[in-house]
Amino acid sequence: MDTKKLVVGIDIGGTNTKFGMVDRIGNIYAEANISTPLYSDFDEYINALKDVIAQLESDVENAEIIGIGIGAPNGNHNTGTIAFAPNLPWTGTLPIVAKLQKYFPVIGIALDNDANAAAIGEMVYGGAAKMRDFIFVTLGTGLGSGFVANGEMIYGHDGLAGELGHVIIEKNGRQCGCGRCGCLEAYASATGIKRTISELLATNNDDSVFRHKSPDEFEAKQIADAAHNGDKIAIDAFKTTGEILGLALANAVTITVPEAIFLFGGLAKAGDLIFEPTIESFEKNVLKFWKDKIKILPSELQNKDVSILGSASLAWNSINKGL
Amino acid sequence: MDTKKLVVGIDIGGTNTKFGMVDRIGNIYAEANISTPLYSDFDEYINALKDVIAQLESDVENAEIIGIGIGAPNGNHNTGTIAFAPNLPWTGTLPIVAKLQKYFPVIGIALDNDANAAAIGEMVYGGAAKMRDFIFVTLGTGLGSGFVANGEMIYGHDGLAGELGHVIIEKNGRQCGCGRCGCLEAYASATGIKRTISELLATNNDDSVFRHKSPDEFEAKQIADAAHNGDKIAIDAFKTTGEILGLALANAVTITVPEAIFLFGGLAKAGDLIFEPTIESFEKNVLKFWKDKIKILPSELQNKDVSILGSASLAWNSINKGL
Repeated sequence: MDTKKLVVGIDIGGTNTKFGMVDRIGNIYAEANISTPLYSDFDEYINALKDVIAQLESDVENAEIIGIGIGAPNGNHNTGTIAFAPNLPWTGTLPIVAKLQKYFPVIGIALDNDANAAAIGEMVYGGAAKMRDFIFVTLGTGLGSGFVANGEMIYGHDGLAGELGHVIIEKNGRQCGCGRCGCLEAYASATGIKRTISELLATNNDDSVFRHKSPDEFEAKQIADAAHNGDKIAIDAFKTTGEILGLALANAVTITVPEAIFLFGGLAKAGDLIFEPTIESFEKNVLKFWKDKIKILPSELQNKDVSILGSASLAWNSINKGL
Repeated sequence: MDTKKLVVGIDIGGTNTKFGMVDRIGNIYAEANISTPLYSDFDEYINALKDVIAQLESDVENAEIIGIGIGAPNGNHNTGTIAFAPNLPWTGTLPIVAKLQKYFPVIGIALDNDANAAAIGEMVYGGAAKMRDFIFVTLGTGLGSGFVANGEMIYGHDGLAGELGHVIIEKNGRQCGCGRCGCLEAYASATGIKRTISELLATNNDDSVFRHKSPDEFEAKQIADAAHNGDKIAIDAFKTTGEILGLALANAVTITVPEAIFLFGGLAKAGDLIFEPTIESFEKNVLKFWKDKIKILPSELQNKDVSILGSASLAWNSINKGL
């Protein structure tokens, strides 16, 4: 009987580490989950990863693991290390690929950060399957992005490329977590749209449910719900967010000219509320060569298990390239 | 006796078409020149190209042409066509590679636009020789650019990528030739710095030689000369130009994270006058990951024959990649 050739996708989060045994077309054969902060010692954590991988392989009949993909905050594809990830329990630069490789000497191990893992997931399992040039934008708590050009993820000289969230879009604009002011992430993200709500409450007299809520009490989802209920401040917040995001994307495409831009994450789930103003602003601001030519689309991974599929796709992408 | 393996570099300009027979390390063995507008019929022009190439091959003893590289305004690497180049005598989309290929069926022909040809020239013959990730910026009448990532020029889905000059850097800023407002090219180019002189003459009471000159009467070179003579308006114009360019480059590196950025062209010849404020603004505005890590350098092709070396490099780059 033929073996099932599978890869293990591992998504390392601050709370959980998720595992999935995944085939080339995205079927998940087995899953597992461990607590990340349970392992204060990094070597013990690596040991736990090894044990779970072995367990998963024995759980699936006739399975052969032919690759391992790891998505992690600050995961660096070029160096195989995780450096200074604030939400993980270990400090410094962690050589995760080299350490895990000792247990799996003949299996390729690919590491990347979460945003790039999701982008490669879109390429392997989603809407970018036949595209050589696309941009993937995650509108979560922050704004993550991955740029694929000539069929390859752009990693840059240090492995940290694709930080669209830290393009300065407003000179002397909002403070950003990075220490500078005016970064796109401070506007076009779940956090950014909440700040826009605060700004609109200040500049505007319209009534709004958000006049009666602390910013702690709501998320992008509640802003979308309010907008659907006709809350003008909420509708305007999406409009403002889309205007800024559309301009930033119009600028970004001058560099890589993608076939499409995929939007993913909590804010992208708001659908037309965010897509319409983003596309309108993009088309208004983009250089004429590209008017009506570059699609802005919802990620096809939006309702799938992106953490497992994204990390698994890193392994399949390496295998597909013959690495 | 061994043959000399050479390529022909052809630079198509609105006035002249220049030819050079060039080896792998940039030695030019023979050159030629024809008038571009002399050939109102494109097929006659192709015929002339063929004749000049044959003549060049017979001019160099034991030469064997193993590639042809063509740099042309609006030259599209992906399609092998020149589309709607305003300074050339022919209209529409010109399939130059396919037409010339008929005369040279077994020789690879690579086409690209001028800015990309210069960028690949930097990679083949200049300071980017060992770099896989760099940005090349031409500060001429306009602002051209080429982005190399993972060792490959980023062409984008339509072959027109790398238009850094058309990033909107000032909302509602200066009118640009592209029909929009606030493009980087309207500030950071030989034309842009002249506009900055006009702006400073309006906002500022300092005396300046430019109070006594029509904008028709000077170029970037005269602004540099005036700055060297202590003309405050001229010095400030370079400072303003560098501030805007540095910010735009700080934004661009978030996408591709190059090892270095090369500046080329008339404005780059001003040396410290433009490099100092550009680097200062870049370092001030760049995300902390990349502070003091990305070099901003003068192009090493600045004083060489970039039109011939750039177009020849397109052929060598294809040959080096085994295409």
